[in-house]
Amino acid sequence: MPELARTLQVSPSSLYNHVTGRDQIVELLRERAMSEVELPDEQPEGPWTDVVAEVLRSYRRSYARYPRLIPLLTAYPVNSSHAIRMYNVLAVTLRRAGFDAADTLRAITLMDCFVLGAALDVAAPDEPWHSGEEVWPAFADALATGVGKADRADDAFEYGLAALLRGLSAD
Amino acid sequence: MPELARTLQVSPSSLYNHVTGRDQIVELLRERAMSEVELPDEQPEGPWTDVVAEVLRSYRRSYARYPRLIPLLTAYPVNSSHAIRMYNVLAVTLRRAGFDAADTLRAITLMDCFVLGAALDVAAPDEPWHSGEEVWPAFADALATGVGKADRADDAFEYGLAALLRGLSAD
Repeated sequence: MPELARTLQVSPSSLYNHVTGRDQIVELLRERAMSEVELPDEQPEGPWTDVVAEVLRSYRRSYARYPRLIPLLTAYPVNSSHAIRMYNVLAVTLRRAGFDAADTLRAITLMDCFVLGAALDVAAPDEPWHSGEEVWPAFADALATGVGKADRADDAFEYGLAALLRGLSAD
Repeated sequence: MPELARTLQVSPSSLYNHVTGRDQIVELLRERAMSEVELPDEQPEGPWTDVVAEVLRSYRRSYARYPRLIPLLTAYPVNSSHAIRMYNVLAVTLRRAGFDAADTLRAITLMDCFVLGAALDVAAPDEPWHSGEEVWPAFADALATGVGKADRADDAFEYGLAALLRGLSAD
């Protein structure tokens, strides 16, 4: 808080007129990161995999705007209402699909890990791996398929999302 | 570089005696984050899903020691030899399992996203979500299964790893 007050060139006490402390600042940052997450109605219809896929696509897009915030946000308990609403929608959808309570928590954690990693991948360089001498042929061939492909990260996300939903369906 | 030199209380020019610049510092940090990744032999035997699972478990454990580094490392191209070796092993294993070159890159990207997100989850609070009024019953029931469970993150990682490998196998 003192450092933030210095950066903003205000006194710490005037900062406390607006926020109660570090926890609240983190939640305000989380609201910002989540602000473009689009959620369906309270009782979304259609196949559960479609509902989840749409939520995760907009979750990734929204977080990809602020990759550096991710480790801060994951280090604090989620407490902001838009975030809780997203997890409510995911939980209702998974329960409707037949997941028990424990697997619902596990599946939501899997989705979170995948989406946050994928949001970081959006900020990765156009060629995330250097292709030097040490690269074996199998990896070199794989890397070559991504070179110069503007939608590399989007394409990999859709592939990963489909694999994840297939894996959860086949449990 | 100037800021790092100040922090270390050395002159920028003496810092350049040790490293060539920011890129090399990032690669040294990546080597540190990867240092506990255990890799099998060049031609690992056994089912491909077992080989991949073992690599990803140690990849997650190794990175979980430095969660705050993750967005920095993903913002720079991978260039360190231990990291390249890990991707070589994954690529060889996936090609052996029948993945074509493009799907090998996509599957490796999925593994990266999942593992980096899971490494961040290790650093999450014991209860990553606040369970307040806004939480609907389906999500509340799910959260209750994680409360007080010391191995919540490990348990969710194993569940997610199994789902991911099932999804990739069923492609």
